Amino acid sequence: MKIVIASDSFKGSLNSLEVAKAIESGIKKVYPRADIIKFPIADGGEGTVQAFISSIGGELVTTNVTGPLGTKVTATYGILTDKKTAVIEMAAAAGITLVPQDQLNPLITTTYGVGELIRHALDRGCTEFIIGLGGSATNDGGAGLAQALGYKLLDADDQEIAFGGGSLQNLRRIDATNVDHRIFKANFIVASDVTNPLYGPNGATYIYGPQKGATPKMLNELDNGLKNFAKIIYRDLKKDIHNLPAAGAAGGLGGGLFAFVNATLKRGIDIIIEKANLKKYLHDADYVITGEGKIDSQTINGKVPVGVAKIAKEYNVPVIALAGYVDDKSFLTHEAGIDAIFSIINYPITVEQAMEPTTAKMFLTKNAEEIFRLIKLITDKHEDE
Amino acid sequence: MKIVIASDSFKGSLNSLEVAKAIESGIKKVYPRADIIKFPIADGGEGTVQAFISSIGGELVTTNVTGPLGTKVTATYGILTDKKTAVIEMAAAAGITLVPQDQLNPLITTTYGVGELIRHALDRGCTEFIIGLGGSATNDGGAGLAQALGYKLLDADDQEIAFGGGSLQNLRRIDATNVDHRIFKANFIVASDVTNPLYGPNGATYIYGPQKGATPKMLNELDNGLKNFAKIIYRDLKKDIHNLPAAGAAGGLGGGLFAFVNATLKRGIDIIIEKANLKKYLHDADYVITGEGKIDSQTINGKVPVGVAKIAKEYNVPVIALAGYVDDKSFLTHEAGIDAIFSIINYPITVEQAMEPTTAKMFLTKNAEEIFRLIKLITDKHEDE
Repeated sequence: MKIVIASDSFKGSLNSLEVAKAIESGIKKVYPRADIIKFPIADGGEGTVQAFISSIGGELVTTNVTGPLGTKVTATYGILTDKKTAVIEMAAAAGITLVPQDQLNPLITTTYGVGELIRHALDRGCTEFIIGLGGSATNDGGAGLAQALGYKLLDADDQEIAFGGGSLQNLRRIDATNVDHRIFKANFIVASDVTNPLYGPNGATYIYGPQKGATPKMLNELDNGLKNFAKIIYRDLKKDIHNLPAAGAAGGLGGGLFAFVNATLKRGIDIIIEKANLKKYLHDADYVITGEGKIDSQTINGKVPVGVAKIAKEYNVPVIALAGYVDDKSFLTHEAGIDAIFSIINYPITVEQAMEPTTAKMFLTKNAEEIFRLIKLITDKHEDE
Repeated sequence: MKIVIASDSFKGSLNSLEVAKAIESGIKKVYPRADIIKFPIADGGEGTVQAFISSIGGELVTTNVTGPLGTKVTATYGILTDKKTAVIEMAAAAGITLVPQDQLNPLITTTYGVGELIRHALDRGCTEFIIGLGGSATNDGGAGLAQALGYKLLDADDQEIAFGGGSLQNLRRIDATNVDHRIFKANFIVASDVTNPLYGPNGATYIYGPQKGATPKMLNELDNGLKNFAKIIYRDLKKDIHNLPAAGAAGGLGGGLFAFVNATLKRGIDIIIEKANLKKYLHDADYVITGEGKIDSQTINGKVPVGVAKIAKEYNVPVIALAGYVDDKSFLTHEAGIDAIFSIINYPITVEQAMEPTTAKMFLTKNAEEIFRLIKLITDKHEDE
């Protein structure tokens, strides 16, 4: 019995690897000798580095960089077994958890450290970059990252603008003369599930600014800053991020990575399929187990379970999905290749209690066990005949 | 594909037949031509008559009898297709729903109408009786029932005692001279899941009296009444109900039926197995689906799912259980023959919301569908090979 587990994280509860491990425990109770392959799927958020290293292999690298407040922080990223691919979570250098609650202030927080991590990996010989955009404390459009890579962001007096989204309004000119040219020979992939544009009512500032500490008064200033940033980038770098989907991810870092390092946006699931060669493992599997926190009508729009199902269906491998919340519209995912869907919830419970990691793991293990009990029952029955 | 559905009620939410119908809807989405046999299991409570008529066949009979407050009520019972077996819910004549909330008073409520229903069925030629004990408004030990059947319950002045648990303390002598002798040629089976004794701290009064309107002041009086009742019964009828398990069911009616009509106590599941010939239908089934509101470590103690599983296992039929609440100890039921257990809950929800009948039905249908999608998947896969 060969089983591939390729689930999204259960956001806010368990990362993708934790989900896979909990499911594995349940299967092992029924098929102790099953060949179980865990493919954690990174979504760009916390756990992205761990997920890639778990599913592909690699090493963790730790270094000191400039944190979101301008002081030094210790940050870890991953280099995969090919020695060429670096996996960086922007949150490692500019994440919201690095800033004390009372100091959250997107006027001053910077992505400078993310640029430093890229340079560190370039020094190690990396030429492929996967950058996860979840959990940012910043709203600087990736200005700090650009500065760390050698771009000069100049104001009306030809002075470098200060760190943070509050200074973007002062940007008048970008000088790319001294840019670290290695970035143009490297490939950058951005992992993000966020599709918001850079600015405007659905942009980075208005949608995500408040949770990063933007007061109502700051919002207009920050949003105008990003708009000016896009304008100068368009004029000086010939890159148009005005209406680019996902440019608003991570406080505009999505747009910045497009402008400054020619990044391509991909979903975590597509990256893992490409990098980890999911097909190779799936083609002869007996079952694939996938899942996400909530399965609903949105799931058919390219989310992890449907992405996994699409590949599984090429090889006629049955796909079973598990979720914390199985919406009344979840039947739509059947048409997208998910053969059966089960909620992991075992009894009436609050969302908060269900998302408590110990409970969520217990639920996953229990339901995986029951599903494989059923599978074994039917399989044994047919093999007896 | 032949499937037998034999689930308990989901108490407080759906009766056994409603559960079976909801499961059937889900299965039909996957196997539209499946041969599905619904065996609603009566538990003695509301829906018992309907369950027996659904699984065995029969007719409903309606008549007027004395209600719990002494006024006339319209009551319905069932006569099964054999024309000999009457199925009576005590609640039809003495149930708590027949008494306005502000008039609940176990000192005066009587089971007289239950005795009248028995006589009505005897007049119709019935000789087999199944009496469901759920939902009583009474605490009279079945004194009213005895009176309706011709027993004289006399006080110190050789006068008939009044209706209700409050008069049992006055009982001095039972005169069986004028009893309707047809009851001694009939068989009485009591369907009850309650195992409390007649009186004492775990008896009818202290455990169930308060919900029937017994104030703290009444409890001692009612409990002493039942104790005196048992004493006089023992002396005059040579029946010992002092410590009889289930004598405390339905305000002592369990004990009264034992004393006055030689009733035997059985669980609903055992009655249905015997009367409905569940074995005949199960022996060649492909699957049996069972369930109850909550599956926990108590389920192994002779509750419906395990009772059904026991028979299914004789014929090696796979057993799948569904429940609203799947307890962490539910794995114990695997050893008792339940092959796989699934909760019907699809997302975090309150108990009240989950028990709302429309929601509970939707959950049952959805999960039955997903389970049979999985079954079909595996079955088709093996048949392809």
